[in-house]
Amino acid sequence: MSKAQQIYSKAGLPHLIRQNGTVTRQDFEWFTENYADRTLGMSVSAVRALFAVANRPEVVSLAGGMPNIADLPRAEIAATIQNLIAEKGIQAMQYGSGQGEAFMREAICPVMEVEGIKANPDNIVVTCGSQQALDIITRIFCNPGDVVLLESPSYVGAISTFNSYQVDLRHVPMDADGIIPEALTEIVKAIRAEGKTIKFLYTIPNFQNPTGATMPLARRQALIVAAEKLDLVIVEDNPYGLLTLTGETLPTLRSLDDQRVIYLGSFSKTFAPGFRIGWMLAPYPVREKAVLAQESATLCPPVFSQFAVSRYLNDFDWLGQVKVFRKMYLARRDAMEQGLKEYMPEGVTWNTPTGGFFYWLTLPEGLDSEAMLPRAINAKVAYVIGSAFYADGQGQRNIRLSYCFPPSERIIEGCRRLGEVINEELEMLHTFSSGISLQQRKSQRRQTNNPAPNTL
Amino acid sequence: MSKAQQIYSKAGLPHLIRQNGTVTRQDFEWFTENYADRTLGMSVSAVRALFAVANRPEVVSLAGGMPNIADLPRAEIAATIQNLIAEKGIQAMQYGSGQGEAFMREAICPVMEVEGIKANPDNIVVTCGSQQALDIITRIFCNPGDVVLLESPSYVGAISTFNSYQVDLRHVPMDADGIIPEALTEIVKAIRAEGKTIKFLYTIPNFQNPTGATMPLARRQALIVAAEKLDLVIVEDNPYGLLTLTGETLPTLRSLDDQRVIYLGSFSKTFAPGFRIGWMLAPYPVREKAVLAQESATLCPPVFSQFAVSRYLNDFDWLGQVKVFRKMYLARRDAMEQGLKEYMPEGVTWNTPTGGFFYWLTLPEGLDSEAMLPRAINAKVAYVIGSAFYADGQGQRNIRLSYCFPPSERIIEGCRRLGEVINEELEMLHTFSSGISLQQRKSQRRQTNNPAPNTL
Repeated sequence: MSKAQQIYSKAGLPHLIRQNGTVTRQDFEWFTENYADRTLGMSVSAVRALFAVANRPEVVSLAGGMPNIADLPRAEIAATIQNLIAEKGIQAMQYGSGQGEAFMREAICPVMEVEGIKANPDNIVVTCGSQQALDIITRIFCNPGDVVLLESPSYVGAISTFNSYQVDLRHVPMDADGIIPEALTEIVKAIRAEGKTIKFLYTIPNFQNPTGATMPLARRQALIVAAEKLDLVIVEDNPYGLLTLTGETLPTLRSLDDQRVIYLGSFSKTFAPGFRIGWMLAPYPVREKAVLAQESATLCPPVFSQFAVSRYLNDFDWLGQVKVFRKMYLARRDAMEQGLKEYMPEGVTWNTPTGGFFYWLTLPEGLDSEAMLPRAINAKVAYVIGSAFYADGQGQRNIRLSYCFPPSERIIEGCRRLGEVINEELEMLHTFSSGISLQQRKSQRRQTNNPAPNTL
Repeated sequence: MSKAQQIYSKAGLPHLIRQNGTVTRQDFEWFTENYADRTLGMSVSAVRALFAVANRPEVVSLAGGMPNIADLPRAEIAATIQNLIAEKGIQAMQYGSGQGEAFMREAICPVMEVEGIKANPDNIVVTCGSQQALDIITRIFCNPGDVVLLESPSYVGAISTFNSYQVDLRHVPMDADGIIPEALTEIVKAIRAEGKTIKFLYTIPNFQNPTGATMPLARRQALIVAAEKLDLVIVEDNPYGLLTLTGETLPTLRSLDDQRVIYLGSFSKTFAPGFRIGWMLAPYPVREKAVLAQESATLCPPVFSQFAVSRYLNDFDWLGQVKVFRKMYLARRDAMEQGLKEYMPEGVTWNTPTGGFFYWLTLPEGLDSEAMLPRAINAKVAYVIGSAFYADGQGQRNIRLSYCFPPSERIIEGCRRLGEVINEELEMLHTFSSGISLQQRKSQRRQTNNPAPNTL
């Protein structure tokens, strides 16, 4: 008899459900029957299970968005953090401010200045990764059913966060230069004609996840003008901006308009994700609510991490290190370009990104990237299916490949394996002329496809 | 002209609101008019502004719930973390699992075992402080208007989290032994008769924040029986359990019932809060949704912190260190007991806690702890007003004092100053027989009183 059963039986309470002290299915019923409405959309995608397999070392994973941080000066960072604890350990291991420590917010300003932003540390809120900034922004603004606009396609982790607040997500068409302002204008008018409230436009102007697209300056200016005309707030997510492969960094939207843009930044790609330090830069009323939301969510962002990251920013040539990263990612991007050119069958198309981590491929008509994934993993190569980046079931012919984590020769080998898989799919498609893969397409709206962190 | 104005004017767009490049009040209107419903309840309390003053060194703050971590072996921790980065830096600075790293979850199990819990690491979700565990639990279960039961009074940070999900909070009467099961039964029946859904009972059985009360074993058993009869899920929050001052640790509710209890733990008081590592132990369906919620909130809990905390648990005599903390807090508790006995006027009553950080004082009839606070801070002593720990405006005659952070002689001096302030209040009350303070009482329901992290 379990302790609980002993207590119940002493109290003369029949305890019918739990027999032999084992957990029975019935015991879970209360929990599953009592979820909040928002939780019903949170479900594990079928794809996720595959990634347990995809993480085996023999599989070339072109799926993950993990930065390659092997080049960081580990010994020096270790010594710096040792000194930090010796000198400031009591503060670094204590509770901190819900807004983030003042020294951290001050150290963030010069980082944003590289991309043209003049910021006041008072308007910064430090977050547990920029993912939490997204969560807080959505928490502050979005009632269930409110509309958020986003690129078509967009970051799977953002879609997941928006869905967890029951947001009505609407994609805005983009081309190789990012969001098309005319299309944005049309969509906004149509949505408002429905009587719906649009809370903001979520955009990744630099080396977008998943398409790799970057908005040229003229497009940025046109987007700002369109937003002003439409009275639209923009949430600009910029994790990849400094990882330019051409050396060119374009002005952020926030640097063009400091009133209408809420800016999200991250150290996960320019330094290291394990500290979980991101931030938002927001106008005063948003910042004020964001601090309260941060406090009710975590009390304060990780304090020790803030000490570590700000030491790194102050004591190291962090921008020099970013330049080292750029070189490394450039070589990997070139390897992927070479692999794709060499091994992709006729009819597969892609962009060539000038920064960030991602290629966005379009497969020939009749193929289905989700149906193909088990066969790809069987052939020891992994990718992220295109439909993960849409809230509405598009993207079935797309796949996202990342060149950030595996070394160049593995990237090329991955492309070779993927090319073979696609070729086999095409052969099968031609053999069964009606197109098996086509039939497998689903027309229904997808459920929330919560991302596994290693696929972002 | 700002960059945005240049862009607008080039586009022939009149830009009326922003003049001279300065931020005008109007610019904020969009933001303030577009908050989600949940955000309307998030507001900065008047009390918070006082704490900026209260943090001045000449003020004895008996308000904060910050642990005193000065006794931690800093040099050894510094060396350990240096080694950690040298050996495992690449993993420690990388993204991790949304559930928390396996080694961290395994290291948490023996910590819970000290309080009688046999746990499976699979059922643990690591969180950014146990505050985030509260946030995630509420996110998973609570629709706006759902009821959560909590002690009367209860932790201000929990009230703030619940309010941010628009929960209908109902206090359950407690005595010196914690929640009264008969009262719980009555309240549950009354609430269900209203047609409302109760999602869980939130309780802090050990050295409760703010009252310091601890449930004896018999009360725990009676509570478990009542919960079973009422089919009520319990969320047990246990940040202080190991900080017993008598050496006695009572079995956690989770150790008595492993089906009906979701358990929240924290390293903030037994080790250090700055790493922001807490956890929840939950039945499978809750754990599954909690991981998805964690991923959409932060992708993963702080990875570097998990490496640091698990190293500390594995390489140090962490429980020996907890015993060092107990001795130190015992001396401070005794100092506060002495200070209160010596300086509190007739009519002020309090508990004497046997663990944790807090005394809960009741002032004589006619006094108002909120009205008194500015005068206390003026007299260079700070406390937390009682009403912060209620969702319904009770607690106006209560104050919470903490003995965790200031050294013993400061604690006694703080009690002396507070005694003087209360004496002056009582004199004033007797002079103006109608009772000024009484008139200042507010009868309306309080707004969300978001906590500043330094007052928790």
